[in-house]
Amino acid sequence: MADKKPRIVIVGAGFGGVKLAKLFAKDDVEITLVDRHNYHLFQPLLYQVSTAVLSTDEIAYPIRTFFRKNPNVEFFMAKAQGVDQSRNVLLTNHGEIEYDYLVLAAGATTNFFGMKEVEEHSFGMKSLQEALHIRNHVLHMFERANKSKDPEERKKMLSFVIVGGGPTGIEEAGAISELVGIQKKEFHNLDFSEVSIKLIEATPNVLPMMPQNLRDHTVEVLRGKGVEVLLDTQVVGYDGHTIKLKNGEEIPTSTLIWAAGVKAVPFIADCGGEVDRAGRVIVDENLRVNGSKNVFAIGDCANFCHGTERPLPTVAPVATQEAKVAHENILRLIRGEENLQTFVYKDLGAMATIGRGQAVVAKTSMNPEMTGFIAWCAWMFVHLIRLAGTHTNITVAIKWTWNLLSGTRLGRIITNIKI
Amino acid sequence: MADKKPRIVIVGAGFGGVKLAKLFAKDDVEITLVDRHNYHLFQPLLYQVSTAVLSTDEIAYPIRTFFRKNPNVEFFMAKAQGVDQSRNVLLTNHGEIEYDYLVLAAGATTNFFGMKEVEEHSFGMKSLQEALHIRNHVLHMFERANKSKDPEERKKMLSFVIVGGGPTGIEEAGAISELVGIQKKEFHNLDFSEVSIKLIEATPNVLPMMPQNLRDHTVEVLRGKGVEVLLDTQVVGYDGHTIKLKNGEEIPTSTLIWAAGVKAVPFIADCGGEVDRAGRVIVDENLRVNGSKNVFAIGDCANFCHGTERPLPTVAPVATQEAKVAHENILRLIRGEENLQTFVYKDLGAMATIGRGQAVVAKTSMNPEMTGFIAWCAWMFVHLIRLAGTHTNITVAIKWTWNLLSGTRLGRIITNIKI
Repeated sequence: MADKKPRIVIVGAGFGGVKLAKLFAKDDVEITLVDRHNYHLFQPLLYQVSTAVLSTDEIAYPIRTFFRKNPNVEFFMAKAQGVDQSRNVLLTNHGEIEYDYLVLAAGATTNFFGMKEVEEHSFGMKSLQEALHIRNHVLHMFERANKSKDPEERKKMLSFVIVGGGPTGIEEAGAISELVGIQKKEFHNLDFSEVSIKLIEATPNVLPMMPQNLRDHTVEVLRGKGVEVLLDTQVVGYDGHTIKLKNGEEIPTSTLIWAAGVKAVPFIADCGGEVDRAGRVIVDENLRVNGSKNVFAIGDCANFCHGTERPLPTVAPVATQEAKVAHENILRLIRGEENLQTFVYKDLGAMATIGRGQAVVAKTSMNPEMTGFIAWCAWMFVHLIRLAGTHTNITVAIKWTWNLLSGTRLGRIITNIKI
Repeated sequence: MADKKPRIVIVGAGFGGVKLAKLFAKDDVEITLVDRHNYHLFQPLLYQVSTAVLSTDEIAYPIRTFFRKNPNVEFFMAKAQGVDQSRNVLLTNHGEIEYDYLVLAAGATTNFFGMKEVEEHSFGMKSLQEALHIRNHVLHMFERANKSKDPEERKKMLSFVIVGGGPTGIEEAGAISELVGIQKKEFHNLDFSEVSIKLIEATPNVLPMMPQNLRDHTVEVLRGKGVEVLLDTQVVGYDGHTIKLKNGEEIPTSTLIWAAGVKAVPFIADCGGEVDRAGRVIVDENLRVNGSKNVFAIGDCANFCHGTERPLPTVAPVATQEAKVAHENILRLIRGEENLQTFVYKDLGAMATIGRGQAVVAKTSMNPEMTGFIAWCAWMFVHLIRLAGTHTNITVAIKWTWNLLSGTRLGRIITNIKI
């Protein structure tokens, strides 16, 4: 037994999981990283794939490439299905994996809050496939409208509704508005006054993490870009043709993009820990799943609520900061130490892009509040350096510059649509 | 009637169709370009998408972008279904389109020579979707083999068979062999001696358009890269598990890529002209469909056999040269002239890449015979300048250089596979 290295199993190759595996790769342990995809997805730029700015390959990075020089990191492509804590095994659709220490870093999926009909007919924005579906569908709507002789049908096809006033919804609405501007140059016979873009938010405000002046600025910029922003407006139904609002009004549309909420991936409920309403597993101040000795959880699938008013936000910096503490605490357990490190979240601030040359950055200890072009440059810079792979950094930088200057989007190809 | 401009309808936005629409865009005519995809596909580089070198967006270009400044060119996304020459209408799945002059430039699809079972279980290499299917499947085979404990299963998953010794088959075999080399660096626990790559050709030679010394060189280079080249070998069946050869031998494999033949897209048979065995419509020396006054055909869907031993090869230069003559002849007909131009094909030579830094270029009046790195540079140059869009030229050039230097392929992401 003395010779056997501790086996760390990590579920999920998002920001938290990859960071953690990289940290452990330098230690004298065996790591198995499990994900149902063979790529790490840079989720903050999904909206750019969905609006034909970037290619899939530019925001998805082969997981194995991270660990090319780390033979102690084994990638296992499988769908996690649960955890049997009594036997220390992770259950997957490709068999069981034994662990000495397990870290759940499995991320989140779209939360439709139980509205099955909405879920069935609208587009989520959490996976690469969903982003491609949106891109294919939105572009196809223009082609179909171009062939339709029925003005009501055309208006429905050219109505794009985004639900959710968080960064994803804001970014998507802004990017679609710019996409429309580009399409306008190339559809010589389509009446673009029939196009409408609506952003619907259930609360009275967009961007809850931002100060009020930046929220107001964001709404103003969006409206200037032709986006109707409907605040205090709640969607209660969508059958693929008509959105029903809580106030009784209806919006005919062929496109509803749902960016209004997230919940932990469902398998988290089968891991033997207590979960909250959003399906996140409750962790103690050391990031250990409540009641467990050797199972940790980090990132979007964990509910960390110690010294904070509400669970931490589902953003990358939380996951990567948690990865560091989970790494340290597991090493301490391996060494037989009992005193574990407490996780303290360092808020790095918030930013959101609204469109080409337009963004908002909230004030932090490190930077002043920013809006407009300077905020957009800051946003670009932060996202570029965080993208995995030097080659991708370069090509994405070129593409963004190109788009800024030429006002075109070469990703406007429709794949996978039956015409 | 004097005010009505002649309406030219072009079916297919491949090399021939786009070239023709660009030529007509400058004339006083109305052009409708019909394609079932909204993008022009750079087919010669499909094999690079299928082997994770390039992204889909890099070889697919939005058709409308070509004609941004040409309001007289209307793109109509639809599937052509036939032609009623008596009424001068093109039939599509989105209704009829009237024409004064029609040009069929609809291209080719894979020819399985009637072998339904092979067609069902193997991968074609003519469309973007097919290239993505190959990429997903091949990468997935590595992940599956990595999880399998059955050596026979593993060998079958790691056996990649390409049928067809033309440029596509050669390029695909070479690119897969290099992909294997890259995978080898990242699968720490997979036994790569279980991998096999076979190129099967029914005739005694690869690359029929090349002189014998270049064919021999190509086979030698491929064998040096670990590709088994089986000449004079005919596939007669494949059930998804085992290839049956005409000589009675069997090859167990999970992957059969079929690059052994092309035929015209099926709708050509419903256009009112006579078609040959490969489904191509017979045209006269002016590129007009035999027996028709105002219907022309160019490129892979046309059988031009005047002063040539056999129909012209299905390559881009034939289509673009034919587009020029079809353009000229239709203009003459519009002007009421009766004397039409005869098409004469100018052979620009042949080239094929075998792998990183390896290609063959046949001698022509313009260049000497080339092999090795210099031939590869020539191949790169010719393909780069022909790719649509300056931005794409730049990013593809960067990607190729990057791959050459770093030996990685960032496109190795598996989408759309149920694990």
